[in-house]
Amino acid sequence: MNESPWQPYLPYNALLCRYDEIGTKGKNRHAFEKRLWSELRRRLAPMGEFSLITERGRIFLLPKDEKAHFSEEDLLCLRHEVPLISGLASLSPGFVLQPELAAIESCVMTHFPALHAAFRRHHGEAPCTYAMRCRRSDKGFPMSSQEIEIYFAGKLCQQFPDMTIDLRQAKLQVGLEIRQNLAFVFFERIAGAGGLPSGISGNVLALLSGGFDSPVACYQMMRRGCQVNYITFHSSPYTPPATLTKVADIARRLNSMQNPGKLLAVNLLPAQKAIRDLCSSRFRTVLYRRMMMRIASQVAYKLGDRALVSGDNLGQVASQTLENLAVIEEAGTMMLLRPLICADKWQIMKTAEKIGTWELSSQDVPDSCTVFAPPDPATKTHLPKIKQEEKALDLELLLQQCLQSTCFIDPQDYSETPAEFV
Amino acid sequence: MNESPWQPYLPYNALLCRYDEIGTKGKNRHAFEKRLWSELRRRLAPMGEFSLITERGRIFLLPKDEKAHFSEEDLLCLRHEVPLISGLASLSPGFVLQPELAAIESCVMTHFPALHAAFRRHHGEAPCTYAMRCRRSDKGFPMSSQEIEIYFAGKLCQQFPDMTIDLRQAKLQVGLEIRQNLAFVFFERIAGAGGLPSGISGNVLALLSGGFDSPVACYQMMRRGCQVNYITFHSSPYTPPATLTKVADIARRLNSMQNPGKLLAVNLLPAQKAIRDLCSSRFRTVLYRRMMMRIASQVAYKLGDRALVSGDNLGQVASQTLENLAVIEEAGTMMLLRPLICADKWQIMKTAEKIGTWELSSQDVPDSCTVFAPPDPATKTHLPKIKQEEKALDLELLLQQCLQSTCFIDPQDYSETPAEFV
Repeated sequence: MNESPWQPYLPYNALLCRYDEIGTKGKNRHAFEKRLWSELRRRLAPMGEFSLITERGRIFLLPKDEKAHFSEEDLLCLRHEVPLISGLASLSPGFVLQPELAAIESCVMTHFPALHAAFRRHHGEAPCTYAMRCRRSDKGFPMSSQEIEIYFAGKLCQQFPDMTIDLRQAKLQVGLEIRQNLAFVFFERIAGAGGLPSGISGNVLALLSGGFDSPVACYQMMRRGCQVNYITFHSSPYTPPATLTKVADIARRLNSMQNPGKLLAVNLLPAQKAIRDLCSSRFRTVLYRRMMMRIASQVAYKLGDRALVSGDNLGQVASQTLENLAVIEEAGTMMLLRPLICADKWQIMKTAEKIGTWELSSQDVPDSCTVFAPPDPATKTHLPKIKQEEKALDLELLLQQCLQSTCFIDPQDYSETPAEFV
Repeated sequence: MNESPWQPYLPYNALLCRYDEIGTKGKNRHAFEKRLWSELRRRLAPMGEFSLITERGRIFLLPKDEKAHFSEEDLLCLRHEVPLISGLASLSPGFVLQPELAAIESCVMTHFPALHAAFRRHHGEAPCTYAMRCRRSDKGFPMSSQEIEIYFAGKLCQQFPDMTIDLRQAKLQVGLEIRQNLAFVFFERIAGAGGLPSGISGNVLALLSGGFDSPVACYQMMRRGCQVNYITFHSSPYTPPATLTKVADIARRLNSMQNPGKLLAVNLLPAQKAIRDLCSSRFRTVLYRRMMMRIASQVAYKLGDRALVSGDNLGQVASQTLENLAVIEEAGTMMLLRPLICADKWQIMKTAEKIGTWELSSQDVPDSCTVFAPPDPATKTHLPKIKQEEKALDLELLLQQCLQSTCFIDPQDYSETPAEFV
């Protein structure tokens, strides 16, 4: 049962949210469900209020007024928003009913004709195949799952003689769950985001730039249950204010997918000037990045974050070698996670489009890394050589100078507040 | 144009291999093509010899005898093997021809009827849609791409009046490339593995266990151009010989996808016994893993590998927390890459099936980590506490004791050769 863009609007009275991995978590289960529940409430708040019913391994989302059904507008909104909420395996809009055959039959026979008509509208004379899948967790129900399936196949195939039964990949599928307290009828299954509920895995600090990769890295960490804060670097006045507003726009977009994280901006210019003046030009990029690692580690400790996150992608550009990645990481004092290390560029771009950061990242705005960038950066650096280069720098002083510029940026209005923890 | 399992056997005389990302590598391009070329030769050696023609952004694989065509068996083998070779975006079996209209027309009109008949066999009376896509890099060819497309649409739709044209998602697609030296006609496009050519990104050492995750992590690194060596841990005689033969079987399978990497086995038992006797039981798993990081770092330096690789997956089990990952990593002295850090379990299992390690990993064999494993391992450890625990251990002595057991294992016959570098 797949997502079917031709599905008609039906006056559904519930959205079934299935979770997957988190169902396996034993005693942590309650914490997972609570997170998921609160994230559903937060994300759907603009749509008004909902009721939530949790049943073993399932969450049913209902209109606040139990007798009401979702409007067409509500459903459009749910279809768009809920598949972005991490921790859900799949969703099905459908009908919550009394667990009685008469109620189930009335529901199926009332709504199936609209489904059949929509199929014909969108697929012309293509063969129409049908299947029902019934799951019965209430073993006290008077019919077995198979008996129910055969019962409805008889009824529906008589009413729609153009339909044949195909249990493997039917075009028209009816799902039925029968539980002790309720029955649920549905006609489609929409893929969820997967992953773990927002925030369950702890806090991280992501190095966020205006590029395509780092926002996708943030999203991957969020999907896996991390609460993400952001640190970004600029070189004001060598970079324009747009360098920061672009990143703030990206952070705002990312924050719409989690309990909003903090965005910190650091001016890297003091370090960049010293590196320009005192070190070999070929190593500038690696030396900048080593300084970023030092700064980000310090900031992460102050924020109580447990790891750094980067958009590093092995081999994407000539300088993203194992050698350079190792030399850069070595300067940090906190674990660095790289969710995109083995991704292909097209996969990254596809995810960027899905989460809405592609358009923001594609704006052409100068980046802190390009300030004083050499024409021919070193593709394979070696730690002893780089440490030798750094002997010309007063690293501790430069670190303090950069940290002093740290500001919180409000992604809503771009306002800056100096960070007091330095 | 998608992979179509109903495509008939046709006497194709070439396989077009498209690459993607690596086309963008500027001056590195030649190195990339060479790697890809040699990997194609190595992987397809069991099928006999081939000719390879490289044309800007494309590799054509041809039977050694230029007048021959691929047998049905050859094609089955190519369809199975080539999509596993990293660095390729997609493949199309097809016909290499003289770049002349008469030759192209003869080819299309000869073979299209078999394609149409196969479609009808598999899809019954379903609507049959058609499109041709022509790319003409030889601008000297007398007709434009559009003129060619219209020319063939006229011919074919007259011959097959049941077909209608659908430029967006036709069921029957004809691809045509016209270059200066050759034309190429094809009817399907098979997805490649993506990634970068084997070995181009350098050598890494992966911590390989008998589980599902670490073999998939190895594959992800290979896909991204790394040559992967393997290190595994056992606790002989507390673990049976099968602990090692299972991992050797997995390494053999992985090695079929790259220039074979080395497998090293280390007996962790001296460290495990000391940890059991001298440290709190709750921290055993983390202390074992810290010892593995120390051993693997040493071995990687000896082998000249540039990074360690693990199958770590955030939150998959209760102990895979940010806190524990950081505490374990801290004991290593080499960069650790974790390609699966944000993956979902189902994604990992799906890839394991694709690469053929799922079945090997699913065998129930004891693992080194389970020896003396505590009933309730700590889910969030803190570095100062763990360092305190380690004060009871003679770390340097234990490291040397474990390293002395290091053997190379031959994944073909399980024979062991003591590593002399210790």
